[in-house]
Amino acid sequence: MPTSFALLGAGRIGRVHSGAIAADPRARLAAVADPVAEAAEAVARARGCAVRTVDAIAADPAIDAVVICTPTNTHAELIERFARAGKAIFCEKPVDLSVERVRACLKVVGETGARLMIGFNRRFDPHFAAVRRAIEAGRIGAVEMVSITSRDPGLPPLSYIAVSGGLFRDMTIHDFDMARFLLGEDVETVMAAGAALVDPAVGKAGDIDSASVILRTATGRQALISNSRRASFGYDQRIEVHGSLGAVAAENPRPLLTEIATAEGYLRPPLHDFFMTRYTEAYAAEIAAFIDALASGRPMSPSGADGLAALVLAEAALVSMREGRAVRVDGIAA
Amino acid sequence: MPTSFALLGAGRIGRVHSGAIAADPRARLAAVADPVAEAAEAVARARGCAVRTVDAIAADPAIDAVVICTPTNTHAELIERFARAGKAIFCEKPVDLSVERVRACLKVVGETGARLMIGFNRRFDPHFAAVRRAIEAGRIGAVEMVSITSRDPGLPPLSYIAVSGGLFRDMTIHDFDMARFLLGEDVETVMAAGAALVDPAVGKAGDIDSASVILRTATGRQALISNSRRASFGYDQRIEVHGSLGAVAAENPRPLLTEIATAEGYLRPPLHDFFMTRYTEAYAAEIAAFIDALASGRPMSPSGADGLAALVLAEAALVSMREGRAVRVDGIAA
Amino acid sequence: MPTSFALLGAGRIGRVHSGAIAADPRARLAAVADPVAEAAEAVARARGCAVRTVDAIAADPAIDAVVICTPTNTHAELIERFARAGKAIFCEKPVDLSVERVRACLKVVGETGARLMIGFNRRFDPHFAAVRRAIEAGRIGAVEMVSITSRDPGLPPLSYIAVSGGLFRDMTIHDFDMARFLLGEDVETVMAAGAALVDPAVGKAGDIDSASVILRTATGRQALISNSRRASFGYDQRIEVHGSLGAVAAENPRPLLTEIATAEGYLRPPLHDFFMTRYTEAYAAEIAAFIDALASGRPMSPSGADGLAALVLAEAALVSMREGRAVRVDGIAA
Amino acid sequence: MPTSFALLGAGRIGRVHSGAIAADPRARLAAVADPVAEAAEAVARARGCAVRTVDAIAADPAIDAVVICTPTNTHAELIERFARAGKAIFCEKPVDLSVERVRACLKVVGETGARLMIGFNRRFDPHFAAVRRAIEAGRIGAVEMVSITSRDPGLPPLSYIAVSGGLFRDMTIHDFDMARFLLGEDVETVMAAGAALVDPAVGKAGDIDSASVILRTATGRQALISNSRRASFGYDQRIEVHGSLGAVAAENPRPLLTEIATAEGYLRPPLHDFFMTRYTEAYAAEIAAFIDALASGRPMSPSGADGLAALVLAEAALVSMREGRAVRVDGIAA
Repeated sequence: MPTSFALLGAGRIGRVHSGAIAADPRARLAAVADPVAEAAEAVARARGCAVRTVDAIAADPAIDAVVICTPTNTHAELIERFARAGKAIFCEKPVDLSVERVRACLKVVGETGARLMIGFNRRFDPHFAAVRRAIEAGRIGAVEMVSITSRDPGLPPLSYIAVSGGLFRDMTIHDFDMARFLLGEDVETVMAAGAALVDPAVGKAGDIDSASVILRTATGRQALISNSRRASFGYDQRIEVHGSLGAVAAENPRPLLTEIATAEGYLRPPLHDFFMTRYTEAYAAEIAAFIDALASGRPMSPSGADGLAALVLAEAALVSMREGRAVRVDGIAA
Repeated sequence: MPTSFALLGAGRIGRVHSGAIAADPRARLAAVADPVAEAAEAVARARGCAVRTVDAIAADPAIDAVVICTPTNTHAELIERFARAGKAIFCEKPVDLSVERVRACLKVVGETGARLMIGFNRRFDPHFAAVRRAIEAGRIGAVEMVSITSRDPGLPPLSYIAVSGGLFRDMTIHDFDMARFLLGEDVETVMAAGAALVDPAVGKAGDIDSASVILRTATGRQALISNSRRASFGYDQRIEVHGSLGAVAAENPRPLLTEIATAEGYLRPPLHDFFMTRYTEAYAAEIAAFIDALASGRPMSPSGADGLAALVLAEAALVSMREGRAVRVDGIAA
Repeated sequence: MPTSFALLGAGRIGRVHSGAIAADPRARLAAVADPVAEAAEAVARARGCAVRTVDAIAADPAIDAVVICTPTNTHAELIERFARAGKAIFCEKPVDLSVERVRACLKVVGETGARLMIGFNRRFDPHFAAVRRAIEAGRIGAVEMVSITSRDPGLPPLSYIAVSGGLFRDMTIHDFDMARFLLGEDVETVMAAGAALVDPAVGKAGDIDSASVILRTATGRQALISNSRRASFGYDQRIEVHGSLGAVAAENPRPLLTEIATAEGYLRPPLHDFFMTRYTEAYAAEIAAFIDALASGRPMSPSGADGLAALVLAEAALVSMREGRAVRVDGIAA
Repeated sequence: MPTSFALLGAGRIGRVHSGAIAADPRARLAAVADPVAEAAEAVARARGCAVRTVDAIAADPAIDAVVICTPTNTHAELIERFARAGKAIFCEKPVDLSVERVRACLKVVGETGARLMIGFNRRFDPHFAAVRRAIEAGRIGAVEMVSITSRDPGLPPLSYIAVSGGLFRDMTIHDFDMARFLLGEDVETVMAAGAALVDPAVGKAGDIDSASVILRTATGRQALISNSRRASFGYDQRIEVHGSLGAVAAENPRPLLTEIATAEGYLRPPLHDFFMTRYTEAYAAEIAAFIDALASGRPMSPSGADGLAALVLAEAALVSMREGRAVRVDGIAA
């Protein structure tokens, strides 16, 4: 019998996940909840499921799993609630912007024995996943240096930035998770620098839009992250891992594989300009992985602990940038 | 009210098209027919439609359009039948292996005024379509030389080759259509050479597996086609168009965008090894284009005449190879 | 003791070769001859050699080898003369525009036992040479299909075209030689088509500027050549060889390895726009190969016979284009 | 009349520079000095110049300029000596490993009014130079983030490492100069991390072989440097600059532009494995630039101040790594 799902939050990413659930023969989308009635109803119509309240979903023993796509500030509470209700939980990153709050939430998850997966979708991008497989297969020997270039096509609205938790917690957090995914060792210290170069208004809002981070493990492995909130040529996200025997890199996917040669030179079109098209395959694959883990009983990955670890790196980067020093990860909110 | 579709043929490509119909809000898959009951039932279950006979479908006034995915030797008859039944028709290429038979069939289509689209899916590949748009936008000036490299990952079974009509009618026909799509002028003469290099058994079966073709228009524009039935590195299909102001090319899509650098060099993974994954987007886009044309009343493209024209080029290539001469297209089966 | 060289013809390519001779410790440039006194003197000054007449050079027993860079219509006579004078000879392609004249010349070379190398410089391009080495090393299995794209940056003056012997003898001849270099078998038949697309004046002069050629060996291996006298983006010369186990290709060298990404896309600069910069390394390497062959006594390659064979392919292409038929190579001027 | 040069140091790089001087009609190599007599004599023979002592060269009023290619620990003294002798000076990097010593040396240079150029050859690499030109031409708008990947093919001997001054002063110094060349603003703070990952013996010798550096200017522009002393695939040196309107990058030159496609995938050969072949054009271009500056009277660039500034960044990186903090450049050895 297929696993019965409820979707919490019928916004952009919720609709994407509803499609992945609907397309998987091992799963069934039974219900959707959203305070915006039209949003919930649109998903219900498209997927043939019921519109219900969060309360009703939590109380329904026929619901096996929930997918949480609500605003960030509701994540921790919903996780706790559905953990206590005995549901398996897929939650969009981040669990919360506060390290302390995440720790408290994960404590509840641990106590209830609930199964929790965090939506770091990039681990499921086929190209990035292949980078990791190449490492695991020993193709490049021991990992030494990870380089991550991560640029968004454009600044989000300032209103979003104000509640985002800042660049490190909102955007770099994906790169922190990717660095952890590829380094193969825990990060020991963090150094970070940043500035508002794209728009001074970002700086006035107390945030940065351009950042550089060095992560270092106890044995000396290093990860470099270069971030910008804006890239005129599209969603620029590349990874390169250098090891003792060689290196492996993942290029940017391109929506069009054409090249026009003229007297000006050779011109290829820009990259994807939207994360929904850039990470289409990754979103589908992460939901499939969640369903796999449910079906097989294998551990959820990325786990709640992964979600916490990435947030701790964000916190450390913030301290490093503010205080101009290398920050030990084990000293964060300990 | 959505257009009501019936699917004729529930094999591999039929299932792909059924998904495209089901995904389009302007269309509804009402029925499926296939002599293999399990195949028809599988589609019916997956898409929520009825299993019916071809007769019943032809007789049902509620069916607006049919998608023909049956074996080649049934295409012409089915087109004629459904043209007479007043249905719009999407038919997989080719209409038939005989130029004469295709002409007869298109005569019926013309007389009935039926709308017919032929499934030359590659026109709808986003990269090849972008090549054409670049030409239409004047980016390379007047088209002068088209180069098409088209290699399949591996030989089909000899049993298939025996009934395929031969390389030119079965495989190169896609390239003939693409050349026509890009040249912007009618082909006047054809020169072709070929051999069985991949497997001598192909030669014993009277066919070739490696071919070279030159197409020339009246004004002197030229297209070169290089074919092989086997490429160890996957489905290799590239296009390049050279014009008075520059050139435009489309590269092969790659399933994985990784590159591993070692002492041996820089290694990227092979290409797609299957046309269903290589042309996923193209298959969806061609059904969408059919639905668009139905909805808008705009002409079907590629049309039945396009299907005939490509087959005539195949015929001319065959004569050219056999007789060692440049063959005029207007002399084929005239 | 270094080999003593004389240079006949102090034009553009003569000056290039003079530098290669001067730079090689196994060689010494002793003399230069040119009817244009300033040209000869410029080389003499730059390289520290004497200006002498052709007669004096031919008569001087201290001269071991000559490098012929004079106009094409003097090549055959000079080769014969210096063959009789017992000198080793490097001659720029072609020996002559007439197959008959070349045969007569090579007869003299054969009778005198003179050593003769023909300047098909592209064999010495490091990238094309690596393609051949990959084939010889068995990396792609048996050669099946050779594809050559060969475009010049721009039309030469019409005055040059008038005396050039036509596109096939003047430009495609390099590609004919390259196809022979890579096919690994003798060409049996030639099919060709062409047109004056770049400039109608070329057509009025009885020549073509855009051509397509298919070469076929007795076992069915095929080579495709695509030519244009003009490419807005520079000197475009690529090679690809497809075999039973894979393929090997050589990309265009780029003078600048930069790429600029903006909202318009990713732009790389154009290619080389001049054969002297495109083939710098090849020119040096062919002179070094000539000196190697002199020093080691190994056979000269490409030989006079190679020069003849390429010219015969040009002749066959011309007949094929004019008569609209596949032309057997063994029927050319036999 | 050509500028008269003397070469101090006839080792590997000295021989390269002697060739560049000899090839330039505006220059004449008059003398060479080297304690190893055979080395000096080899250059003298090859270039037709005299072997002389450093004393004799300094005393000879006919010598206009010297090129210093001696061991690092002699640079400062030789610069001072030839500055006092009124010669123009080209000196290989670095002036000295001690910031204090460099300052003292430049003081002498300033007092004597001597013209001094430092051999940061990479500024003259055609591809890196084109990156800078693209920035100056406004192609990417305001510079925001510079990324430098710089890996040597393999560890130098430990004996060399012992006297090298350490990774930052010996290897990263090129990247510090490049970052300065491209950032367009002075660096304000430096953060660095490093480890001996390639060989523990490097760590025992008190050095590192893998490093990450963040440079930050006062306005917030950032440069990231990733270093390794070893790359199995060759000399890996890439640059990317991201700006307000776009980005510009320079790829690695490749000795062979071939690609072999098989069932394993697409394989391109490794990179250059030696700095002499990697930077052939850069070495020639920097000597040409020195001669240009001499001829035109334009300022020398990179200057002695550039040499000092790069060394100061190395010093700051060392302090940052040791003390785990962001280090202000203006606090170094002030």
